[in-house]
Amino acid sequence: MARDDRHALTAMGQAYPDRVEVRGRDLTGDLMGRVTFTEYFHLLLAGDEPSEEQRFFLDLLLVSIAEHGMMPTNVAARMTLAADPDSLQGAVAAGILGAGPVVLGTSEECARLLEEARASDREPIEIVRELHATGKRVPGFGHPVHKPIDPRAERILELADARGVSGSHVDLARRLRDAVAEEWGRPLTMNVSMPIAAVLLDLGFPVSAVKAVPILARTAGLLAHLAEERERPLGFHLARAAEQSVEYEPRPE
Amino acid sequence: MARDDRHALTAMGQAYPDRVEVRGRDLTGDLMGRVTFTEYFHLLLAGDEPSEEQRFFLDLLLVSIAEHGMMPTNVAARMTLAADPDSLQGAVAAGILGAGPVVLGTSEECARLLEEARASDREPIEIVRELHATGKRVPGFGHPVHKPIDPRAERILELADARGVSGSHVDLARRLRDAVAEEWGRPLTMNVSMPIAAVLLDLGFPVSAVKAVPILARTAGLLAHLAEERERPLGFHLARAAEQSVEYEPRPE
Amino acid sequence: MARDDRHALTAMGQAYPDRVEVRGRDLTGDLMGRVTFTEYFHLLLAGDEPSEEQRFFLDLLLVSIAEHGMMPTNVAARMTLAADPDSLQGAVAAGILGAGPVVLGTSEECARLLEEARASDREPIEIVRELHATGKRVPGFGHPVHKPIDPRAERILELADARGVSGSHVDLARRLRDAVAEEWGRPLTMNVSMPIAAVLLDLGFPVSAVKAVPILARTAGLLAHLAEERERPLGFHLARAAEQSVEYEPRPE
Amino acid sequence: MARDDRHALTAMGQAYPDRVEVRGRDLTGDLMGRVTFTEYFHLLLAGDEPSEEQRFFLDLLLVSIAEHGMMPTNVAARMTLAADPDSLQGAVAAGILGAGPVVLGTSEECARLLEEARASDREPIEIVRELHATGKRVPGFGHPVHKPIDPRAERILELADARGVSGSHVDLARRLRDAVAEEWGRPLTMNVSMPIAAVLLDLGFPVSAVKAVPILARTAGLLAHLAEERERPLGFHLARAAEQSVEYEPRPE
Repeated sequence: MARDDRHALTAMGQAYPDRVEVRGRDLTGDLMGRVTFTEYFHLLLAGDEPSEEQRFFLDLLLVSIAEHGMMPTNVAARMTLAADPDSLQGAVAAGILGAGPVVLGTSEECARLLEEARASDREPIEIVRELHATGKRVPGFGHPVHKPIDPRAERILELADARGVSGSHVDLARRLRDAVAEEWGRPLTMNVSMPIAAVLLDLGFPVSAVKAVPILARTAGLLAHLAEERERPLGFHLARAAEQSVEYEPRPE
Repeated sequence: MARDDRHALTAMGQAYPDRVEVRGRDLTGDLMGRVTFTEYFHLLLAGDEPSEEQRFFLDLLLVSIAEHGMMPTNVAARMTLAADPDSLQGAVAAGILGAGPVVLGTSEECARLLEEARASDREPIEIVRELHATGKRVPGFGHPVHKPIDPRAERILELADARGVSGSHVDLARRLRDAVAEEWGRPLTMNVSMPIAAVLLDLGFPVSAVKAVPILARTAGLLAHLAEERERPLGFHLARAAEQSVEYEPRPE
Repeated sequence: MARDDRHALTAMGQAYPDRVEVRGRDLTGDLMGRVTFTEYFHLLLAGDEPSEEQRFFLDLLLVSIAEHGMMPTNVAARMTLAADPDSLQGAVAAGILGAGPVVLGTSEECARLLEEARASDREPIEIVRELHATGKRVPGFGHPVHKPIDPRAERILELADARGVSGSHVDLARRLRDAVAEEWGRPLTMNVSMPIAAVLLDLGFPVSAVKAVPILARTAGLLAHLAEERERPLGFHLARAAEQSVEYEPRPE
Repeated sequence: MARDDRHALTAMGQAYPDRVEVRGRDLTGDLMGRVTFTEYFHLLLAGDEPSEEQRFFLDLLLVSIAEHGMMPTNVAARMTLAADPDSLQGAVAAGILGAGPVVLGTSEECARLLEEARASDREPIEIVRELHATGKRVPGFGHPVHKPIDPRAERILELADARGVSGSHVDLARRLRDAVAEEWGRPLTMNVSMPIAAVLLDLGFPVSAVKAVPILARTAGLLAHLAEERERPLGFHLARAAEQSVEYEPRPE
């Protein structure tokens, strides 16, 4: 084994014949039956136990984003299960692949925007104006269904204020909202991704952890849709409706 | 729209402009800030709030199976992130695809075995003998690392007994263990998948929900490995170690 | 390195600083510019160059199954690209996950049926009757669109006969068709999966290679749909049509 | 159906009860048995039949990139098949997910660089200098194994020159190579991704089609590795070697 190989390290965990160690804890003695799944998720992700507010908001944010009706990710997952009924994991994977920047992964883009804005000391209106001028959208604003407000976003901000968790990132998120309204000449919905990012950053999570929350949350939603799909199949019905909404027209050569 | 299309129904949820309804509840008013993620997972999956014991054991089981060191699923996910660093969802999907019957999905096979055994009224030793005779393995027994016992399995059974949750499925799991030892002439480790299945069934979950637990749990573990991978990349190191463990030898024609 | 590790072998290929060896050939000298992709696929899969008939039918079968309109796999892939426009590989993966036994992977089940039927020496009508009696479908028969015949299946059989390739597996496929018609009391469409399996087996491919053909073929179709999607996006339109075809109705408690 | 829905169009294909139309052709009459898979791939992707040179180079490029030994994508796919032996499609999907910008998808980045360089009329050395100054790598240069040259890249360029296909993009690729050598003070390997991009663009393919070639090619390689994996399993061996190359060291708190 080469020298550098000896230094390949992980701090996650290790299984031994008679015990499992995770993040320096004994899985069966210290964790099983003692911590909730949300507390454990924090330990796994961040390396230590959450504070009471970290725990509260991790639960809140996971609940806020797990389920939102027959979303594209659920549709794709249900079609996949219809085609391969024995592979629940394949259907979940197909659904998770839709957690890209446009639909579910926006929270990470919001976190990056918040971090860059704070690091640069620029005014929100400057940042927003520049994005607008270069034809880019501002992540976290606009929603196809929720207008004029996203009730989930408002609820998160309300609880963050009430529990004294709102800090500089939440403040910046609100100033970005005002700047967007000024630049666009009308209010745009601040969608759920922006407060998810702002609250996680105010609670001390790094940018790189922000996207983990919507992905874990949506996996729970996918698993529930797929459990329903197993009992009440809709996959081929959904596929047919999609197919019939498109016409075939060969391109002239 | 054809007649049958009017009857395509989902009971999961629906987004409206000013609110989101999930399982008949108002997401922002009834659920956000009021239920934990585990309680919400139960509501999503089963359609109602968990009892105190259902909540406790759902947390316990999710914690028991989320992380187990540098497992094949984590290795595959880390390599995938190394190759495509911007797609966290792609790496998670690659990892989840390894949650097949051999590694992580065994709990569903255990649940089926328990259900069939109960439905058939056959003695465990008969069932085990038949599986053995036809060259099949008994799902839930044997483990490459944990010998002679899987500490996670023992801890789950201990808590199920202590809290009065152990019922006919846990009892059957233990009798299967004895039967396996008798048939194989030595004890085989009852691994964590069997008590996960037995406890979930004793708590009233349907067989079709059993696999959702390890998949959600392992997603949390994958997300934590991938957060570490982003800060301390091991993906290509792991790939190189794997590659170097195999020799190329062209097949004679 | 343990003893058994020294014997971990692959016959596929190896990259060296100045050359790449694949299946015992020099990639740049022997293969690039000298063999078609189909011939190379045969070399990769089977370890040697195809005969003229193997090459012809591999091309034929790949062409027969690559594209079939706005299939569920294409719908799922397009939705995934809409949600994550930068990850072509994620969208392809989501589409491939739908290549399960129900939709695209049936050819492997057909191949297993043909092999088992040949090994058992049982009459087709016996096999079909038993499947029917136990509530199972006969793989390779029935199609939601193509009735009374699948034109692709007929074309494959026609060419297999014309080129003298039809052997005992093609013969058995036809006898299964007659048996199905007798048992069901009416003809069922022999769909494209059955001749794909029969011809590949008659050409000497092992059962384990049969499913590789539809998966490679469908990947080509997916890539073409996704290239169109990039220029003329339909993903969210398809998702909306699917979503609107389902009604939300909370389950009474 | 709303007005805009009537205009949702695809030019790919459509299945009818008695025939399948693809790109305006009759699948069974015009294509099956008449075109190779590579010619069909061109028809699917581009909408028309390839010229002789397009066909030749499409075959060449697909062959050049399909297989390269025990690459991370093959390792991830083999581990996934070991964990879920019945889901060939799941293992293929896991492998394809590794076709990101770092490993296999570089050809699209090369194509974008070539297009932008041509559109901007800037000298290669300026472009390279700017990328270097901002800490970015130049896509298409450098390779972990192939030094000082990538034999596949050289072979592609050689054939493109010999057949009179080399045009302004191939020329630009070579000037970028010189610029990179000047800026870095030593030659960097031009890897296979750059000539793939340059030749495809010189043959008239759009940038958006460039990544389809390595993804289709690598799918063939993955399918071959997975066929070998089914007969000679290495998945758990590879996973163990990877796992053992890393040490667990809990992080001090």
